[in-house]
Amino acid sequence: MTGAVTVDSVWRDVCAVRERSPLVHNITNYVVMNSTANALLAIGASPVMAHATEEVADMVGIASALVVNIGTLSPAWVEAMELAARAARDRGIPVALDPVGAGATPYRTKTAHALLDDTPPTLVRGNASEIMALVTSTSAARGVDSVDAPSAALDAARQLQHRFGAVVAVTGATDYVVADGATIRIDNGHPLMARVTGLGCTATALCGAFLAVNPDPASAAASALIVTGVAGELAAERAEGPGTLQLYLLDALHNLSRAQLEARMRAEVTG
Amino acid sequence: MTGAVTVDSVWRDVCAVRERSPLVHNITNYVVMNSTANALLAIGASPVMAHATEEVADMVGIASALVVNIGTLSPAWVEAMELAARAARDRGIPVALDPVGAGATPYRTKTAHALLDDTPPTLVRGNASEIMALVTSTSAARGVDSVDAPSAALDAARQLQHRFGAVVAVTGATDYVVADGATIRIDNGHPLMARVTGLGCTATALCGAFLAVNPDPASAAASALIVTGVAGELAAERAEGPGTLQLYLLDALHNLSRAQLEARMRAEVTG
Amino acid sequence: MTGAVTVDSVWRDVCAVRERSPLVHNITNYVVMNSTANALLAIGASPVMAHATEEVADMVGIASALVVNIGTLSPAWVEAMELAARAARDRGIPVALDPVGAGATPYRTKTAHALLDDTPPTLVRGNASEIMALVTSTSAARGVDSVDAPSAALDAARQLQHRFGAVVAVTGATDYVVADGATIRIDNGHPLMARVTGLGCTATALCGAFLAVNPDPASAAASALIVTGVAGELAAERAEGPGTLQLYLLDALHNLSRAQLEARMRAEVTG
Repeated sequence: MTGAVTVDSVWRDVCAVRERSPLVHNITNYVVMNSTANALLAIGASPVMAHATEEVADMVGIASALVVNIGTLSPAWVEAMELAARAARDRGIPVALDPVGAGATPYRTKTAHALLDDTPPTLVRGNASEIMALVTSTSAARGVDSVDAPSAALDAARQLQHRFGAVVAVTGATDYVVADGATIRIDNGHPLMARVTGLGCTATALCGAFLAVNPDPASAAASALIVTGVAGELAAERAEGPGTLQLYLLDALHNLSRAQLEARMRAEVTG
Repeated sequence: MTGAVTVDSVWRDVCAVRERSPLVHNITNYVVMNSTANALLAIGASPVMAHATEEVADMVGIASALVVNIGTLSPAWVEAMELAARAARDRGIPVALDPVGAGATPYRTKTAHALLDDTPPTLVRGNASEIMALVTSTSAARGVDSVDAPSAALDAARQLQHRFGAVVAVTGATDYVVADGATIRIDNGHPLMARVTGLGCTATALCGAFLAVNPDPASAAASALIVTGVAGELAAERAEGPGTLQLYLLDALHNLSRAQLEARMRAEVTG
Repeated sequence: MTGAVTVDSVWRDVCAVRERSPLVHNITNYVVMNSTANALLAIGASPVMAHATEEVADMVGIASALVVNIGTLSPAWVEAMELAARAARDRGIPVALDPVGAGATPYRTKTAHALLDDTPPTLVRGNASEIMALVTSTSAARGVDSVDAPSAALDAARQLQHRFGAVVAVTGATDYVVADGATIRIDNGHPLMARVTGLGCTATALCGAFLAVNPDPASAAASALIVTGVAGELAAERAEGPGTLQLYLLDALHNLSRAQLEARMRAEVTG
């Protein structure tokens, strides 16, 4: 279903984002608005944040991708997410959904389910606990941090992929992109990244940018996660802690070279 | 109408902000609240963010300037902006308006127009697309990033200045401050600044701080844009990308010296 | 009432936070959501931000501490704060209240009073003006920055402590933790910290983390303020201004060692 994930395919996506600078409309949480906008700018995309029901359909109307993130949800925002997701489906632009904290509270789990049911997204990216909460009725989550290893969520990811037709990305120490008939395993990244808030949200936002330029969502998601992981490694080598890591990661996204991808990318496609 | 813009006039404004530490009330967008609060603190002002209709008039009542920014607007926030702008007019304190994304959606354009019509601000600062959207019925904007060069918006800025009596600042690679009878051209800044979210919003917030200490709004706006541009240049020389630029810019604002202004300031007043 | 504050007691708390990684539920202001989430992660806690009335009680139900901060309050958020504080009381988990800007507007003062009256928190942390505004009817505050020295608020802190049974922390150049029968004075910190937005909010958030692992609230608060102050000193020595200080402080929290505490901690318990 999806082709090989190679330095060539990832680099092609990076160059496409830098050249086309796709407008990525984000309806996201308050915690990460600044950091995800900066990550999108650093990779070369053009971010816009808009959440009023009065304008989300219009903003989707000029965007190349929509990112929906429920990290600090409330009813008015959920209504805007639904409106925007419907507008995106009608226009045929890709949607990346980040079910932050699904499983932690019934409200989050219910909202994530409703968004999946009503307007199945192109891609879902979450940590293991979140992905598992989307297919089981029992909740394993503890706040917004995962209590499960990514591999434990592979079955859930496959069920989710099958049920909604969405590509499902499970991220953590190892990342997996689950598509129809193929799973991509990515071993980039650095443990210190877990000590910076919202780097999962950043990965989802970058998925939005890559979905905007690559019509194969599994390949686009793999590019986004590889780029995030490689930039995280480069940043961690310069950083003295999570504070500097957050900023150096933006520098690394901006400066990312093909040579760096060649030296560091660790991804394989399995059956 | 406005006097010369000199190292002396800019430095006088910087010293006044540092000495008086004016309280600047911001009703601004979620993306930049942290970064603009930090920029105001770095230059020596005292920022406060408050948006509830229950308190904005009271907060304006103790502030020395009001900054209104529609970057993530919604009806309740727009109502608060209107209340606060009226309170500012009644008290005679300056108001800086940032019409983020005007032209990108009808809701933003309409809101910006309503704010201009009902309570004309002391200053409007926007990128070229935003300023043009405020005078034409056709929208040229693409999200919140400009698709036009600042010089293309000079006619629109002059119309806007004439119609509302507000000083109009158009920022980009070159910045222009359009006042009654004079235009100030500023060539400070660095291209990497466009890869950091909200530096336009930072410029508007700093305009608020300088308007609070300088009764000549064109001169105050010029000081703010020169200071932002010079700090951006200093930061860009240390930075390895947009992540570090964002932080070094705050350091540069805090450490800004008269000698740095003398060495770098590039501004001229034309007819 | 409270025991000695020693390097041992502080280091025990730091180790407990790192080992248990307590889930700290924050209902806080937009300005500091990112920076306080990062501070909590840097010290080893697990932050979650949630403000919808639909979920705050459920989130409190899995959290080990609740942090309530009124920095950008509005009626819907205040309602959520009240719901969450009641749920925390019912579950017996500690609550840290940050009355940001109390005294600056009647709405803030009234809201802070209502939160104190209805669900007395375990701890209140504020600057001198805020703490004084909680016991006097006249407001001395100017925005969210204090116009009074911490020592001027000691009487107010003692009244507040007596009336509500809460530990009261007044922070500034010197910090005081006022408990029943004892006052802890802390002289850590650096003047540049006042030029970074929300470091008071960070101190309150860290109080939440330490309250989650230490049943003696005065001792927990002292640990949080000492850790914040020592990390601020370490950061200030590396920093070239407030921009880099903000990030280096996160690095310092993450890397904090017992030896650093031994070398720098300046705290004493008085009668």
